[in-house]
Amino acid sequence: MNKIVESIRQAILDSGLKSGQTVSFHHHLRNGDHVLNMVMDEIAALGIGDLTLNASSLFNVHRPLKEHIRNGVVTRIITDYMAAELGSFISAGNMKAPVQFRTHGGRPADIENGTTPIDVAFVAAPASDCMGNCTGKIGKSACGSMGYAMPDAKNARFTVVITDELRPYPLTCRSIPETDVDEVVVVDSIGDPAGIVSGTTKITRDPIGLAMAQTAVDVIKASGLLKEGFSFQTGAGGASLAAAKYLKDVMLKEKIRGSFGLGGITGYMVDMLREGCFESLMDVQCFDLKAVESIRDDPRHSEISATHYASPGAKSAVVDSLDVVILGATEIDTDFNVNVHTDSDGRIMGGSGGHSDTAAGAKLAMIVAPLSRARLPIITDRVTCISTPGSTIDVLVTQKGVAVNPKDRVLALRLKDAGVKVMDIEELKAAAERISGVPMKPAIGERVVADVIYRDGTVIDRIREVVE
Amino acid sequence: MNKIVESIRQAILDSGLKSGQTVSFHHHLRNGDHVLNMVMDEIAALGIGDLTLNASSLFNVHRPLKEHIRNGVVTRIITDYMAAELGSFISAGNMKAPVQFRTHGGRPADIENGTTPIDVAFVAAPASDCMGNCTGKIGKSACGSMGYAMPDAKNARFTVVITDELRPYPLTCRSIPETDVDEVVVVDSIGDPAGIVSGTTKITRDPIGLAMAQTAVDVIKASGLLKEGFSFQTGAGGASLAAAKYLKDVMLKEKIRGSFGLGGITGYMVDMLREGCFESLMDVQCFDLKAVESIRDDPRHSEISATHYASPGAKSAVVDSLDVVILGATEIDTDFNVNVHTDSDGRIMGGSGGHSDTAAGAKLAMIVAPLSRARLPIITDRVTCISTPGSTIDVLVTQKGVAVNPKDRVLALRLKDAGVKVMDIEELKAAAERISGVPMKPAIGERVVADVIYRDGTVIDRIREVVE
Repeated sequence: MNKIVESIRQAILDSGLKSGQTVSFHHHLRNGDHVLNMVMDEIAALGIGDLTLNASSLFNVHRPLKEHIRNGVVTRIITDYMAAELGSFISAGNMKAPVQFRTHGGRPADIENGTTPIDVAFVAAPASDCMGNCTGKIGKSACGSMGYAMPDAKNARFTVVITDELRPYPLTCRSIPETDVDEVVVVDSIGDPAGIVSGTTKITRDPIGLAMAQTAVDVIKASGLLKEGFSFQTGAGGASLAAAKYLKDVMLKEKIRGSFGLGGITGYMVDMLREGCFESLMDVQCFDLKAVESIRDDPRHSEISATHYASPGAKSAVVDSLDVVILGATEIDTDFNVNVHTDSDGRIMGGSGGHSDTAAGAKLAMIVAPLSRARLPIITDRVTCISTPGSTIDVLVTQKGVAVNPKDRVLALRLKDAGVKVMDIEELKAAAERISGVPMKPAIGERVVADVIYRDGTVIDRIREVVE
Repeated sequence: MNKIVESIRQAILDSGLKSGQTVSFHHHLRNGDHVLNMVMDEIAALGIGDLTLNASSLFNVHRPLKEHIRNGVVTRIITDYMAAELGSFISAGNMKAPVQFRTHGGRPADIENGTTPIDVAFVAAPASDCMGNCTGKIGKSACGSMGYAMPDAKNARFTVVITDELRPYPLTCRSIPETDVDEVVVVDSIGDPAGIVSGTTKITRDPIGLAMAQTAVDVIKASGLLKEGFSFQTGAGGASLAAAKYLKDVMLKEKIRGSFGLGGITGYMVDMLREGCFESLMDVQCFDLKAVESIRDDPRHSEISATHYASPGAKSAVVDSLDVVILGATEIDTDFNVNVHTDSDGRIMGGSGGHSDTAAGAKLAMIVAPLSRARLPIITDRVTCISTPGSTIDVLVTQKGVAVNPKDRVLALRLKDAGVKVMDIEELKAAAERISGVPMKPAIGERVVADVIYRDGTVIDRIREVVE
C-alpha cells in the first residue's frame, strides 16, 4: 500500500478539483519553486478554472500566473506577499477581484477557522516517503523548515505531496505526517536549489546601513530588554543582518544568554545559537544553507508551524513571547504606520509576511530604514498603504536619528539617557525632505486591486490601481 | 505573559467546566498517574457533576473514580482500556450508562470528527514551559512519548497542562505545542515514577511462554514477511518480549534489515533498533526506562500521535503499513474472534487498546496465548466479548500448535511447508478442554454495562453485568 500516483495530472484528477474551488501552495522554495507553475499548468490544461489561489507568498518565478489570470484559470488570489513582477501586473488592474493580502499569522488562523477553506493543497517536499511523511530538511532541494505548509496540509480537503526525493517509509524527520496526506507525486525536480536558499546571506557594506544597524543595537541595549532570556527576530536584509552581527558582539561581550531567535532564520542567527547567545531557534522558514544544515542537525533549532509562529487564532504563538523584532519599511508615516506592500508609486511589490504579526507581538517593534531610497523620502504624512498599524510600532531607526512612538514615553526617556539621538518623527521627515524633496503623490485610480487584511481579519487598507 | 495559574482548582474554574460536560485524560503515566485523581477530586469539591470522562486508559490507581461514579460526579465513561479493579466495579452494575469502549485508533478519530467532543483536556506533562510547550521525554516523571494526549490537546475547547517540572521557554523538544494549551499548572508531583514505567520489562521464564515465543518467530519466518523492510509490533507481556528477543536473533543471523518497530515500545525494541534490525521506532507510548531514554536521545526513535499510530479517520496511519503484530487474548473463539475486554467470567479487566487497530492494519495479525490460563481454556465456541473481529486475525499460536484462519489458505500452506505444527482451531479447542475441562458459562445478567465500539464506530459487542 502506498499513495504514489504517476503524475501531477493524475493527482489533480484524483483530488476531484473543480472550477470555482481553492488550491493552496507554500513558499519555502522561494524564487526557486517549480511546483506552483507545474501544478497550475496542469490544472489549466485540464480545463479547470475560476480558481482561488491561496499561496503563502508569490515570487517573480511565479510570473506564469499572469497568463493563468488572463485566461480565467485563477480569478482570486489570497497571499501574504507578492513580489514586484506579479505585483505590477495586479496594480495595473489585470485581475477583476481584489487580491486578499493576509499575514503569515492571519493566514493559518483563517485556514483553521474556516474563513478560507482549501480544497486541494499542493505541498512541495524536498523528501517524502511513499505514504506522505515529508520534510524539507533533507534532499537535493532541501529548504529546511516547512512551517507554512503545515496548516494547509492539515486542513485541506485533499493534500498532494510533490517531491523529487523518495525516501524509505517511515521518514521519521517529518515536517508533515502521512495522516494529512492523500497522494504523493515524484517529479524530476521541485525547484532550483540556487533560488531556494542563498548560499550565504550577506551583511551590508553600505555605511548608512552599518550606521543604522549600530543604532538599532544601541536602542535594544537602552530598552532594558537585552538581558538573560532575551528573544529576537530580524530579517534577511543587509542592515538587519548587520544588526544581528553587532548584537551578537554585545551579547558575547556582556555574557548575556538569550532564550530564542525567531523567524525566517539565517546563518547569522545560527551563529548566535552556536556561540551561546540563544538557547534555541524557532524556525518557520530557512533563508540560507547554514540555516538548513542547522535545522537538520541541531535539536535546539526547532521547526515550527506558521500557526505556532504567529497565528492570532492559536492559544498562543511564539510572537507573543518575543522581546525585539527588527523590521523594514518602504514607507512609514508620522503616525508610525508602515507600508511594506507597495512602493511609493503605489505599485505592489511585497506584503506583510510576518511584519504585522511580529510587530503586534514583540515588546519592542523597531523599523530600520534609511531616510530616503532611490531619491524618495521614506517618511511621509500618510503611507500609500497601511501594512502594519502605527499603534504596534515602537521606534524608527534611521541614519540621522531615532524616532520613538509617542505612546512609548518610558522608552524615549531610556534612549535619551543612553545617549541615543532621539528626534521627533516630524523632524526626521523634514530632514528626509531636505535630502529628497517632497515627492509627488502617485497617480492612483479608483479601482481597488487588493485588500490588506490585518491579522485579526479586518480590512485595514485597500490598494488601488496605479494609473500610468 | 505566561499561562501559569496557581492551582488545578483555578484552572478548572477558568476552563468554565460545567456539569454535563466532558473532561479527558491520557494514560502515559499508567499506574503511577496522580493527575486524573487530583483533577477529579477538585472537580468533585467544586460541585461539578454528571460528567463524561474520556480517558485513553484507566488503571487500578484510578480506583477513586468509584467514589466519583457513586456520587454522580462521573456518569459516563469513554475509554480504550479499564484495569480489573474499576472493571469489576463496572461489571457489577454500579454505573447507569454503559461504558463506551473505543480503541486507540478509534478514540482520536472520534475526537477529531466530532463524535466525542472534549470540553476540557487535562494533560499530565513531565516537563512544560510557561506557555504550555510540553514533553514526556524529560523530567523526574518522564514517560517518553505523549502520543495519546495529542488529539485531546489539539481538539479540546480548553486544554490544561499539569506538570511537575517547569522548564524555560521555549521548550523545543515539545510533544504538544503551546498553540493547543490554555493554562499551565505546576504541582509537586504528577506521578510515581515506579508506576509510570517499569525499570525493565522482563522476558518470561515460563517454558510454555518461551515455546510459544519460538513458534511465533517460526510463523513469522515462514510467512514470507521477514525480509528487507520488515515492520513489527509486539506487546510488553513476557511471551511477546521473548518473541522479540528470538526475532532479533534471527534477523541478526540472517542479516535482515527491517524498516520500523511500532507501538508501545520496550527496551527490547530499542535493542533491535540499536543492533540494526530496524531503521526506526514509531512510538505512541513507552513501557520502560530504556524506551524513555531512547526516544529522548535517538532521532530514529520517533514520537507519534495516537492519530498517526492507528486512526481510521486519518488519511493513513502507521498500522496500515505494518507487517506483523503479536497480540494477546483472554479468549479466542473458533471464528478467531478475540476477547481482551473481560475474563472468562465476563468481568471487565482490559480493553482493546490498539489490539483491533493493529489487527486490522497488519498483514499478519498473530494471537499468542496458552491453551489455558488459571485452569480455564482460552479457546471457546464463542468469546464472552468480541474485542477484535476474527476476520482481522490470521493465526493463533499456542504451546501445542498453531491454528490458521481459514481465510489465509496460502499462509497455512507456507507454515506447513516450513514444518510448523498447524492444527485446526477445533482440535486446539479440544486439546484445551482435555486439560481444563469445558468451563461453565459465566453468570451474565441482562443489563448492558459497556458497549464495545469498533474502530469504525460500530458497536461490535455489548458487555453485560456479572451476576454474583
